[in-house]
Amino acid sequence: MDRLQIRTRSRVEFQDITAEIGKIVEGSRTASGVCYLYVPHTTAAVIVNEHADPSVVRDIIDHLETMVPERGPYRHAEGNSPAHIKASLLGITEVLLIENGKLALGTWQGVFFCEFDGPRSRSLYIKIVPDAP
Amino acid sequence: MDRLQIRTRSRVEFQDITAEIGKIVEGSRTASGVCYLYVPHTTAAVIVNEHADPSVVRDIIDHLETMVPERGPYRHAEGNSPAHIKASLLGITEVLLIENGKLALGTWQGVFFCEFDGPRSRSLYIKIVPDAP
Amino acid sequence: MDRLQIRTRSRVEFQDITAEIGKIVEGSRTASGVCYLYVPHTTAAVIVNEHADPSVVRDIIDHLETMVPERGPYRHAEGNSPAHIKASLLGITEVLLIENGKLALGTWQGVFFCEFDGPRSRSLYIKIVPDAP
Repeated sequence: MDRLQIRTRSRVEFQDITAEIGKIVEGSRTASGVCYLYVPHTTAAVIVNEHADPSVVRDIIDHLETMVPERGPYRHAEGNSPAHIKASLLGITEVLLIENGKLALGTWQGVFFCEFDGPRSRSLYIKIVPDAP
Repeated sequence: MDRLQIRTRSRVEFQDITAEIGKIVEGSRTASGVCYLYVPHTTAAVIVNEHADPSVVRDIIDHLETMVPERGPYRHAEGNSPAHIKASLLGITEVLLIENGKLALGTWQGVFFCEFDGPRSRSLYIKIVPDAP
Repeated sequence: MDRLQIRTRSRVEFQDITAEIGKIVEGSRTASGVCYLYVPHTTAAVIVNEHADPSVVRDIIDHLETMVPERGPYRHAEGNSPAHIKASLLGITEVLLIENGKLALGTWQGVFFCEFDGPRSRSLYIKIVPDAP
């Protein structure tokens, strides 16, 4: 299992980590297999979506804010309930496939670490399981 | 890795692909293992939900439309931000279990390819990993 | 594949099953590997989120209720469309990692079975795949 350290810089921020994940996959010299991403936090998530136009993730961030407003009748005393809710809506794991030694991503797909309660120092677990020979 | 070609016919449409996935799993002669579904697109998703009564997915489609309206203050110039947002809410992967040579689905469960920006020609990656002997 | 029987007691309820999953993982004597959770139902889900302060899941439950109200213009005759919609928003699978014979959970993370149409007798499939030696 690898750990990627991620430094987020805003309260809410989607960080494009496609290149970092790709490097770890290529470094593992796995011809084909599965790459699991796991976020060990409760106010962050991981998604795969378009990374060509940065306005796409901007729209996802803003619309999540509309759906889960900062102020609400929340109970949790720390005041970060919206971050917990958003993390569960987007999910904390992603399963990527490896083919020909690379991530089998679609043309426009990138991997994003989704910070909802930053800025913080975060980590992402990455586990690569090669196919049986 | 298999690729399933999917032809969607509407802007938004959930296509029941349970039989197609089942056929690929049975064709692989895998007694037990894991079947990964991966959508290599950024405006489509994959879910498992009830496929006995088609009004269930109709309700999911319509309610997503209420939660993520077509018109909003979106930035992304292509005008399909709602499709990107819905894809991230439902997710682009699904992990199914294989037992006794078949998908271990619940009684009412079916697998749906979720189109949010069609009609288009789409593909779905399917990877089957048998358990070690 | 293991099956965990879960007895839910309310219409909507998130049940903390971290200890039960942990016991099954430890009982399997898997040093490292992957633990798949799969909900074979269409009105329930599984998530990983904070289990230190129970008000966090209370806020998730309540906010989902705001986003997907009980009364709506739903078609499905059984009247449980909100439960189906919430199940697809949170997702029916979770992929956990196993390291040093234990679940590699973050400090505050717990696993919750999410009932949206109870009270009922439910089951959860648990599949553990050890890494190749």
